[in-house]
Amino acid sequence: MHRTKIRVAEDALDANETIARANRDDFDRAGVAVVNLMSAPGAGKTSLLERSLAELDGVRAGVLEGDVQGSMDADRIAALHVPVTQLNTDAGFGGECHLDANMVRSAIPSLALDEIDLLVIENVGNLVCPAEFRVGEDARVMICSVTEGEDKPLKYPLMFRACELVVVNKVDLLPHLEFDLERLLANVAAVNPQAKTMLTSARTGEGVEEWRRWLAALPERAAVAA
Amino acid sequence: MHRTKIRVAEDALDANETIARANRDDFDRAGVAVVNLMSAPGAGKTSLLERSLAELDGVRAGVLEGDVQGSMDADRIAALHVPVTQLNTDAGFGGECHLDANMVRSAIPSLALDEIDLLVIENVGNLVCPAEFRVGEDARVMICSVTEGEDKPLKYPLMFRACELVVVNKVDLLPHLEFDLERLLANVAAVNPQAKTMLTSARTGEGVEEWRRWLAALPERAAVAA
Repeated sequence: MHRTKIRVAEDALDANETIARANRDDFDRAGVAVVNLMSAPGAGKTSLLERSLAELDGVRAGVLEGDVQGSMDADRIAALHVPVTQLNTDAGFGGECHLDANMVRSAIPSLALDEIDLLVIENVGNLVCPAEFRVGEDARVMICSVTEGEDKPLKYPLMFRACELVVVNKVDLLPHLEFDLERLLANVAAVNPQAKTMLTSARTGEGVEEWRRWLAALPERAAVAA
Repeated sequence: MHRTKIRVAEDALDANETIARANRDDFDRAGVAVVNLMSAPGAGKTSLLERSLAELDGVRAGVLEGDVQGSMDADRIAALHVPVTQLNTDAGFGGECHLDANMVRSAIPSLALDEIDLLVIENVGNLVCPAEFRVGEDARVMICSVTEGEDKPLKYPLMFRACELVVVNKVDLLPHLEFDLERLLANVAAVNPQAKTMLTSARTGEGVEEWRRWLAALPERAAVAA
């Protein structure tokens, strides 16, 4: 008996992954490396960017600001004379709590891709859903503030697992907190043994040079990986 | 010409609102007042509960702990000998970032409603989606840490608008922060002029008595409103 062979399409992607790859192709063609920067609300994403983007050793940075509403962070970045685009998510029911690939795609025509080497996408402040949506980035990074407690990697493991770099920020406050830094780092390692960690204070500048070097090196790392 | 009159069902509810009302009916029948407690990750919800639930002037409290994963907060509450039920949201895609009425409904059989007067529902740490889902509560409260910056009411207005009480926590850290408390309170008032505010430190105990009194008074306030 003759049977028709059924072909199986391997690697079927969900819609978000399909669009993320299209974004990635556009970024690659433009020669722009992309960081997806995530954190809880108020962990210091924008403050760290203010401290680092203006002097990146010749690497030209741009920012895509994701917020439910408003453009306060974009205004802060624009003050540095860094090209910035605001992407608001409040068209969704009550405001979307994360960026997805399609939202980022809608912003691509507004990005000055030919004027930059590095695009930082500042995601909506949230430790859950942003980790679930790739947007076409080369690297995912999260900022974790020492004021949030040592338990966050165990409570939000997907976020810590999704990121290759965990920046532990606001370390200037350590003397004033009951906070066990070793325990936080052990919790990060428990959920993501591969994660690189870095200690920073956007306020005092501690560790900012290491963060700046990591950002500045990304375009070359991304080009080698491609 | 005779026309068939079409009846319009007013006040059609979405599914979440329908289930929230069913929850509310169950809580009312049991004589239990319910607080939906929300905040960003690490703002101090559990620490404030640890400070307050054991001594509520004869009001018997219970807790429903919402987390993506794990039961660390529930363990802390159980150590107070307060009845606690854990509700994990990680059955969803990557973990749901909020509680909704149906999740709370699924937990009702596990709640010791006949042993308590007040149920505190500790929502998932997130300033966006939890504000969009009523769960059958009498009051919605958010905890806002001074370490998160003054801009949060403007960036997450729905959350601040949804709550009748905004507890500003970690005020013991104010001397160590560049933080303008007056500006935060003005931002809260700008998005929600009706909101009551309270200043607390779960660490030093500052303001905890006021928070405890507010919680202890809720069952009577809820009974009068019903």
